[in-house]
Amino acid sequence: MGILVVGSVAFDSIQTPFGSHEEILGGSASYFSLAASYFTDVHIVAVVGEDFPDKYFEFFQKKGIDTSALGREKGKTFRWKGEYGFDLNTAKTLRTDLNVFSDFAPKIRPEHRNLDYLFLGNIDPDLQRSVLEQMARPRLVACDTMNYWIEHKPEALRRTLSLVDLLIINDAETRELAREPNLIRAARTILGWGPQTLVVKRGEYGALMMNSKSIFGAPAFPLEEVYDPTGAGDSFAGGLVGYLAATGGLDDAALRRAIVFGSVMASFNVSEFGTNRLAELTYPEIEARYREFRRLTHFDDI
Amino acid sequence: MGILVVGSVAFDSIQTPFGSHEEILGGSASYFSLAASYFTDVHIVAVVGEDFPDKYFEFFQKKGIDTSALGREKGKTFRWKGEYGFDLNTAKTLRTDLNVFSDFAPKIRPEHRNLDYLFLGNIDPDLQRSVLEQMARPRLVACDTMNYWIEHKPEALRRTLSLVDLLIINDAETRELAREPNLIRAARTILGWGPQTLVVKRGEYGALMMNSKSIFGAPAFPLEEVYDPTGAGDSFAGGLVGYLAATGGLDDAALRRAIVFGSVMASFNVSEFGTNRLAELTYPEIEARYREFRRLTHFDDI
Repeated sequence: MGILVVGSVAFDSIQTPFGSHEEILGGSASYFSLAASYFTDVHIVAVVGEDFPDKYFEFFQKKGIDTSALGREKGKTFRWKGEYGFDLNTAKTLRTDLNVFSDFAPKIRPEHRNLDYLFLGNIDPDLQRSVLEQMARPRLVACDTMNYWIEHKPEALRRTLSLVDLLIINDAETRELAREPNLIRAARTILGWGPQTLVVKRGEYGALMMNSKSIFGAPAFPLEEVYDPTGAGDSFAGGLVGYLAATGGLDDAALRRAIVFGSVMASFNVSEFGTNRLAELTYPEIEARYREFRRLTHFDDI
Repeated sequence: MGILVVGSVAFDSIQTPFGSHEEILGGSASYFSLAASYFTDVHIVAVVGEDFPDKYFEFFQKKGIDTSALGREKGKTFRWKGEYGFDLNTAKTLRTDLNVFSDFAPKIRPEHRNLDYLFLGNIDPDLQRSVLEQMARPRLVACDTMNYWIEHKPEALRRTLSLVDLLIINDAETRELAREPNLIRAARTILGWGPQTLVVKRGEYGALMMNSKSIFGAPAFPLEEVYDPTGAGDSFAGGLVGYLAATGGLDDAALRRAIVFGSVMASFNVSEFGTNRLAELTYPEIEARYREFRRLTHFDDI
């Protein structure tokens, strides 16, 4: 039972107009796992260096996250340094040190191969596919990617996308991937390549889900305090896939609820630095915000 | 019964990547009136020049729009020339010739002073207030403005806002007006200056309504074909105020439905050049799209 997530675990150094933090826990797999851990079991596949402290292993485990495939290798942990301007919309990468992550070749343990839900975080599409090939037969394969792979490994990415059920990317990536400025036409193009469903993340503007049967649009939760958008996309994916894995549904109604749970987790995540807010949530808070989302978006028939 | 709208009637010349049109009917009062005319009676207060053809008076009248206060003055009609890039998000103004509009001093006819609904299109805030002072006691005063007045007549604008019930502006204007980058905090600041309700237009990202009791967010209708965003904001306002005037409701549920009707009218408007689509709509098409909006945005409780 549960989700296998493959991605990065990193130390982030983040500068925003509201403060700076040095070498805090980050990475796509960290944010995804923490968000998903409120819904179901999570098994993390990633690599860290010798400098990665035991306390973070313990932190993950306390959240019910299985770290048996979080390998510690000779060398240093992946480090990312980024800066946000006053609008907090786009991160400027100041420095990336891949360190042990540059040789990451995920090997899936036998006891993980039968997991039903797989999230392929934003890594080399060839590695994403190698993970997929090691799995028995997941019910749902969800996947993220980024402009770097769209530009540098377009063919490998297309091969991976042909095997994916649910693609979760942002609006700029959607347009770039399809080479089409209209978002809806871009989405239709991508849906022709394999994914049954595309979820487009739009930051402070919410999310849009498209498949052959349905379009669903959700605004972002309106927040008066946004401190650090790092990990918002992975928290969103963690809430989304976490909810699907916990409930077993994959129909349109389940996907809609899942997207709202994703939006809920992203909204909590950005309201404090790093993983601080995801570390201390309670499930009743999550459910309460889900219901606030309904009050935010619903209106009567005529 | 009905709405009094004060604003501009103009000839627009529009260049987009999908084509160019010269000197077509435009202006805030034109778009607003056409959109609102599907819901209720509209009385237009504006000025045009001697070059404004009779066929446009007839066109308005055929739509049930009262043109008795659409004055024809010596001189030429207001002209605007603008250009949109491939993303269609922001217009670049190439040329503005105010012509007869530069001396516009709206005088409200006695038979219009008792109208219950007033829309103050984007004109000089001192003129907006002079219109308000000529009215008996409207049930609802809705108002638009723009960055030019925020920057050049901030005090006159604040005086006008103190008399307005419903302010309908875009997100950049909201932030600039409140001098606050966070949209929700900016909205709260503006609500402290007089308006009971603020509606923030976000273009392709939809709209957000805020008042002291409620927040409502609606995505824009996803469109595969967007040709010309000119007039989208005024079509939105026309649908919104038109629906409120037609039904008489001003409670939270009515405002939510009104915002969706505004979004419906804006989505139709941008799908063809100029006022072409608004000229040929049917009310069943409007209702059908309202219901599509519900399918787009609704999700089940947990």
